[in-house]
Amino acid sequence: MRDVFIIGAGQTPVGEHWDLGLRELGATAVRAALDDARVESVDALYVGNMLSGCVNGQENLATLLADAADLLPAEAWKIEAACASGGAAVRAAALAVAAGAHDVVVAVGIEKMTDAVTGSVSAGLASAADQDYEASHGFTFVGLSALMMRRYMHEHDRSRDEFAPFALTAHRNAAGNENAMFRKPISEEEYRESPAVASPIGVLDAAPICDGAAAVVVCTKEAIQSGQEPLRIAASAAATDTMALGARGDILELGSAAVSSSRCFEASGLGPSDMDLFEAHDAFTIITALSLEACGYAGRGEALRLAAKGCVAPGGCIPISTSGGLKARGHPVGASGTYQIVDAALQLRGRAGPNQLQKARRALTQSIGGHGSVAVTHIIEA
Amino acid sequence: MRDVFIIGAGQTPVGEHWDLGLRELGATAVRAALDDARVESVDALYVGNMLSGCVNGQENLATLLADAADLLPAEAWKIEAACASGGAAVRAAALAVAAGAHDVVVAVGIEKMTDAVTGSVSAGLASAADQDYEASHGFTFVGLSALMMRRYMHEHDRSRDEFAPFALTAHRNAAGNENAMFRKPISEEEYRESPAVASPIGVLDAAPICDGAAAVVVCTKEAIQSGQEPLRIAASAAATDTMALGARGDILELGSAAVSSSRCFEASGLGPSDMDLFEAHDAFTIITALSLEACGYAGRGEALRLAAKGCVAPGGCIPISTSGGLKARGHPVGASGTYQIVDAALQLRGRAGPNQLQKARRALTQSIGGHGSVAVTHIIEA
Repeated sequence: MRDVFIIGAGQTPVGEHWDLGLRELGATAVRAALDDARVESVDALYVGNMLSGCVNGQENLATLLADAADLLPAEAWKIEAACASGGAAVRAAALAVAAGAHDVVVAVGIEKMTDAVTGSVSAGLASAADQDYEASHGFTFVGLSALMMRRYMHEHDRSRDEFAPFALTAHRNAAGNENAMFRKPISEEEYRESPAVASPIGVLDAAPICDGAAAVVVCTKEAIQSGQEPLRIAASAAATDTMALGARGDILELGSAAVSSSRCFEASGLGPSDMDLFEAHDAFTIITALSLEACGYAGRGEALRLAAKGCVAPGGCIPISTSGGLKARGHPVGASGTYQIVDAALQLRGRAGPNQLQKARRALTQSIGGHGSVAVTHIIEA
Repeated sequence: MRDVFIIGAGQTPVGEHWDLGLRELGATAVRAALDDARVESVDALYVGNMLSGCVNGQENLATLLADAADLLPAEAWKIEAACASGGAAVRAAALAVAAGAHDVVVAVGIEKMTDAVTGSVSAGLASAADQDYEASHGFTFVGLSALMMRRYMHEHDRSRDEFAPFALTAHRNAAGNENAMFRKPISEEEYRESPAVASPIGVLDAAPICDGAAAVVVCTKEAIQSGQEPLRIAASAAATDTMALGARGDILELGSAAVSSSRCFEASGLGPSDMDLFEAHDAFTIITALSLEACGYAGRGEALRLAAKGCVAPGGCIPISTSGGLKARGHPVGASGTYQIVDAALQLRGRAGPNQLQKARRALTQSIGGHGSVAVTHIIEA
C-alpha cells in the first residue's frame, strides 16, 4: 500500500453540548483539522458515526457535514462499525488516499448523544449487539459487558477492585486534557464505592454518554507541504468476530482486536514493545484488560497484574488513555476512534501539554465495536 | 488507480420478505455473489445500508452479515449515503482493492423496510433530508420530491402525463426480471390515474417500499481466476450537493449527479454516447428526468422529449431501468445502488434473459441519495 500521512488533527471538547447539533460539532472539528493541516479543502470527507439514524433522525450525515464544513461537492459517506466507527472512518480515508483516488481526505468521527430526538441512547447502543438474539430479549450493552467482567473475575480469580488502575489512570490523565469531559482525578475509594450500573460494572468502570467530534486530515506523501507536521500511518487493519457474545467459544478473547493488531504488527514489522503508547478502547475497564491481552501486552488473565505494577500509567511500559481515554476524556461512541488518533497525533508531535510522554515516537490505537465483534487498529509514527 | 474488476454478482428477489430478516437477506446475496465468482471467502465485506439503525434496531450491521455469511474475521463496515449507500459500498470495495489493502472484497447493499421494529420507514426516509430544516418541520421525502416535480412542470411547461414513459419502461422491463417486485406492465391510463402520493407525484411515479439485498465481488487483475467472467470498473466517482433543497440555487439541477458522472467520463475517456445502458436512480420519475439531464443525455428541460421519442426503452439511444429499475424492480433503499450494478453486470455478460439488450458493452450506473445531495456513479465495461 502507498504511504499515507496524517497532516492535520482537530477536535471539539467532549461533553454535553446541549447547544450544538451534529452540523456544528462536525463542522467545528473538520475545520479545526483543516486549519491544523493548513489546507483549505479536501477531495473527500468520511464520517465515522454510529447513532445519527436512530438517535438524531439524521442519515445522509456525511453530506450534511460536507455542506456544513463548506466542502461541497467533495465525495462524502458515513461509515458505521458500532463504537469502532471513528477508527474505520480514518481507515477508509487512508484507503482512498492509498488507492490514488484522492490526494487529501478528511475523516471525522462524531456522535451527539444528549438531546436524543428520535430514539433512546440505550436502545441505540444495544443495536451494536445482535438485535434478534440479544437486544430484543432485553440485554443492554452494559449488561453484556458485565457478563464478560464477571466471567473474567471468576475465571482468573480477580476482584473488581483490581480493575481500579485503568479508571484511575484515565481520570488522572484527563485532568491534563482541556478537551476532556471529566478533568477530576479519582481515588481508589471512589472507584470502589461507585454505584453499580450492571454489576460488577460500576459508574467508574464505564465511559460516559456524551457529545463530541474529532477529525484528522490524511494525504499522500506527494501532497505534504512545508509547514505541515506529517505523521505516517505505519499500519492499519480491521477484523471481526461473532456478533453475539453467546456464539463465541471464549468470551474472554477479543478475537477482532487480536487479529487486527497482529495484522498491524506484521505489516509494519513492529511489535507490541515498539509502541510508546496505546490508545486502548477503554469503554469499560474489562475491555481495557482484554485489549491489553489481545494486543500482546499481557498473557491471558495477566492484564490486571500489569496494571497493578503501574505499567499503564505515564512512564510505565505501555501508557494507555494518555489524554483520558474513553473513560474520562469521554466516549461519544462513533467519534472515539478518531479522538484516539487525534490524541496519539498530539503525543507524537510533542503537543500533549501536561500529558506529554517523554518518549512518544510510535502509537498503537484500537477502536472496538460491539463486544469485540469488530476492531480497527492503527500504528502511527512520527 | 489500479484496475478493479467485478467477478461475481448475486441478489435476492425484491419484495416484501416478511419471513426474512437482515441476516438472511444479506447472507443469501453475499453467498450468491461468492458462488457466482467461484470464490469461497473474501478479505473484506462492505455493506451499503441506510435504515438498519432507525428501522431495524440493528447497527454493527456489517459484522452481523460477515458472521451470517461465514466470512469472519474479514474486515467489515457499513457505509451510509442515504439512498446512494449501495453504490457507495461498491465504490468502497473498489477503493480497498485499488489501494492494495485487499485482493478480493464483497460489497452488499441491503435494506429491510417491511416489519419495522424500532422506527417508522417514513421517518427513516426523511432522515435523508435535513432534520433541522426540513424533516422536523414535517416534510416527508416524497413531499420534497413533489416540489421538484412541480417546479419542473412549471418551469419547462410540462404536464405530469409526459413523465409516463419512465414508469412504463420500468414496468415493462420488470416483467422480464424474475427478481423484480412488480412484474406487471402498466398502461398510460393506469399511470395517469394512479392516486397521488404527494401531488404531482402519483403511486406510479414512485418506487415502492420493499426488502432486498444484492452483492458484487470485486478483485484485482491478478486475482482473476479462469472460469470467472470479469467486468472492469472503468470509472467510479462520488460527489455531493447541498443537504437542504432550499439551500440550492436551482432545484432542477442535480449537481452531485452532474459532477460524479462528468468525473467518470473524464477518468475513462468516454462520453454519454459510449454507454449502452444507464441504470438511473428512478426512485421518482422526476429524478429520472433530472438524472438524464445531469448526465448529458438531454439538455435542461429536454428529458421528457427524449423519453417521448422512445429513447429510454430497450433499443433506444440510452435504455434505462433495463431490469425494472428502482420503480418496478423495487427500491430497497440502501440496496438499490448495488442492484443497479448487478443488473448492469447481467447485461454486460449477456445474461439478462428476456431483457437482454442487443449491444451491451458499457453501462453507466448512478445511485442518488437525498434530493440529489449525494450521488455515486460507475462505468462498467465488458
